[in-house]
Amino acid sequence: MKRRYLMTPGPSPVPSVVREALACEIMHHRTDEFIEILKEINEGLKYVFCTKNPVLTFASSGTGAMEAAVTNLFSVKDKVLVIVGGKFGERWVEIAKSYGLDIVQMNVELGNSPTAAEVKKILDENKDIKGVFTTLSETSTATVFDIKGIGSLTKDKNILLIVDAISGLGQDALLTDEWGIDVVVSGSQKGFMLPPGLSFMSVSEKAKSFMKNSTLPKYYFSLAKALKSYEKNDTPFTPAVSLIVGLKTSINLIKNDGIENMWANFKKMSQAAQQAALALGLKVFSKCPSSSLTAIVSPAGINAKDIVKKMRKEYGVSIAAGQGELEQKIFRIAHMGWINEQDLIMCFSLLEKVLRDCGYTNFKIGASVARLQEVIYG
Amino acid sequence: MKRRYLMTPGPSPVPSVVREALACEIMHHRTDEFIEILKEINEGLKYVFCTKNPVLTFASSGTGAMEAAVTNLFSVKDKVLVIVGGKFGERWVEIAKSYGLDIVQMNVELGNSPTAAEVKKILDENKDIKGVFTTLSETSTATVFDIKGIGSLTKDKNILLIVDAISGLGQDALLTDEWGIDVVVSGSQKGFMLPPGLSFMSVSEKAKSFMKNSTLPKYYFSLAKALKSYEKNDTPFTPAVSLIVGLKTSINLIKNDGIENMWANFKKMSQAAQQAALALGLKVFSKCPSSSLTAIVSPAGINAKDIVKKMRKEYGVSIAAGQGELEQKIFRIAHMGWINEQDLIMCFSLLEKVLRDCGYTNFKIGASVARLQEVIYG
Repeated sequence: MKRRYLMTPGPSPVPSVVREALACEIMHHRTDEFIEILKEINEGLKYVFCTKNPVLTFASSGTGAMEAAVTNLFSVKDKVLVIVGGKFGERWVEIAKSYGLDIVQMNVELGNSPTAAEVKKILDENKDIKGVFTTLSETSTATVFDIKGIGSLTKDKNILLIVDAISGLGQDALLTDEWGIDVVVSGSQKGFMLPPGLSFMSVSEKAKSFMKNSTLPKYYFSLAKALKSYEKNDTPFTPAVSLIVGLKTSINLIKNDGIENMWANFKKMSQAAQQAALALGLKVFSKCPSSSLTAIVSPAGINAKDIVKKMRKEYGVSIAAGQGELEQKIFRIAHMGWINEQDLIMCFSLLEKVLRDCGYTNFKIGASVARLQEVIYG
Repeated sequence: MKRRYLMTPGPSPVPSVVREALACEIMHHRTDEFIEILKEINEGLKYVFCTKNPVLTFASSGTGAMEAAVTNLFSVKDKVLVIVGGKFGERWVEIAKSYGLDIVQMNVELGNSPTAAEVKKILDENKDIKGVFTTLSETSTATVFDIKGIGSLTKDKNILLIVDAISGLGQDALLTDEWGIDVVVSGSQKGFMLPPGLSFMSVSEKAKSFMKNSTLPKYYFSLAKALKSYEKNDTPFTPAVSLIVGLKTSINLIKNDGIENMWANFKKMSQAAQQAALALGLKVFSKCPSSSLTAIVSPAGINAKDIVKKMRKEYGVSIAAGQGELEQKIFRIAHMGWINEQDLIMCFSLLEKVLRDCGYTNFKIGASVARLQEVIYG
């Protein structure tokens, strides 16, 4: 009878109205009815991505669309800058390496954002850089990057800016066209409030011009094929029908709330979570906290994995430990998609209990919850 | 209030018990609970594929796993034989060409199966062929290929046999290990009775040995990554959680019926559909009819697309027209997955009406339905 609460940075919870849509009777994808749905979601995705350009949908997890950004826009030995501030920056490196790109790797201190000045220095020193790969919300450290600042450097140059917004989209402000971002990649299982299985990719005119010169091999993730079908509200290969029907519902939820309002709400939730951590005498890990999730440093002598395990095993609340070298040092609480303020209050009320059970007692019971109430309800 | 009936060769209908599973509350994929589900489906897939080897699951449509078979097992200029008897044979050619393989293309007359003797001749003339790409059920012509015969040629040689069983698996008999098939590729939206969005791929020991020599680039569809995670009942990238939960249910349905019984039932349905077409004075297109669907030649002067359109628009029954040069010449009725004998009877009763409305009256009303009843119920 134990209820489960999902406070992890993907998959995040799926609203029941979307789950009901997922269970719809299956329809054929080459029908007027389905074409209408694709037309509607194609328009809706432009709204969520803040772009006038096409946003393509693939049946894959987000990494598939990341690969598409590499294989369709570049060629072997093309020089690219990859900004690495955690696990998902490293993923860009792995993919670019798999396809033989010439990588200039900029390492950012974990929990910090690259500054535009630092990026400018590298671009100035490497005039032959053709693309910059970076991340909106680096999920592994709960850090938001200064995408607007980086965009100002590449916008008017023949350099593509490619942003992994898989965990950030919907929570962290992202003005794709205004900031001059050429490709934004995302996935279905975070801000879109869907199960995993869809990836998305916006493609600017500049990106389209790069496609012509790319000689890397591709087939399933071919942008040329996908863009050609897109014009007819179609897909080159069988689309993930049920997830797309669910997406129609979730985009409507986003439209109803308004994307700017969502950014403001999640920013407030992020600030509330940070304040709640401080009220427990704990440290927030990131110097530039993402609006999508909060990383909290585990108290001295307590393994973050133990906190995560107790939260799940004893109370049914899934939060996430760190990744890589941070695995035992931080735990991460998501506030994205369908996760709301009440979930945060529930989560911190149990976190207080679990911290005490782990031997950390340097706070008064209710301290974090009261702080959440103050910040959220004012 | 019009009810919809899906008699297309994918997506095919999804049982309500599976649709309910798809609507389950989302769970995190790095939990004991989900690992148990993956463990169960990994075992179940072995049963359905008739193999002791691993069967990998990707979040993609079937074409993604086809690409994985090319990029993980071969290198640029490797010589491969591709057997082409329709659209899905052509897809193998397109993918292999995209990755620079040296293709020997064997064209089979549309609606016919390649014979083992013909394949042997080509293999004898090209001793450097490293792989054979073919299709179990060529959906575009509703034809089953002699996979057992082809397997007997490659089984004891250092040649990989790779079979696209996307539409055939579950209906057309396929003894992966016994017939010596190295890689079988399939998808979720046909025999597996799920929405599209998952692809599958069995990998023999011989195929694993080819992986080591492959130098083609890959990342999302990397078999090395997928096999490494598979050992721990995990996946390298976020799995399509809801579809996998649904797969658990659909595999149980298959196990309950028994795969051999399903082959026998679908063979009987195929024979019944063929007989029903003959009873209408129509011609079955394929000389080697698949158990997964039946292609019927449209009566002289009647465009198959009109029949398909009327069936859908007026009666809500989706069947499929031909593809490519057969587009206007044949229409195809699927019997796969959750489609049963009663659906066939419903479908032919309306087909009789639509044929008459199109001006073809060369049969007595009820002729095809009576023939179906005779063949099915004996």
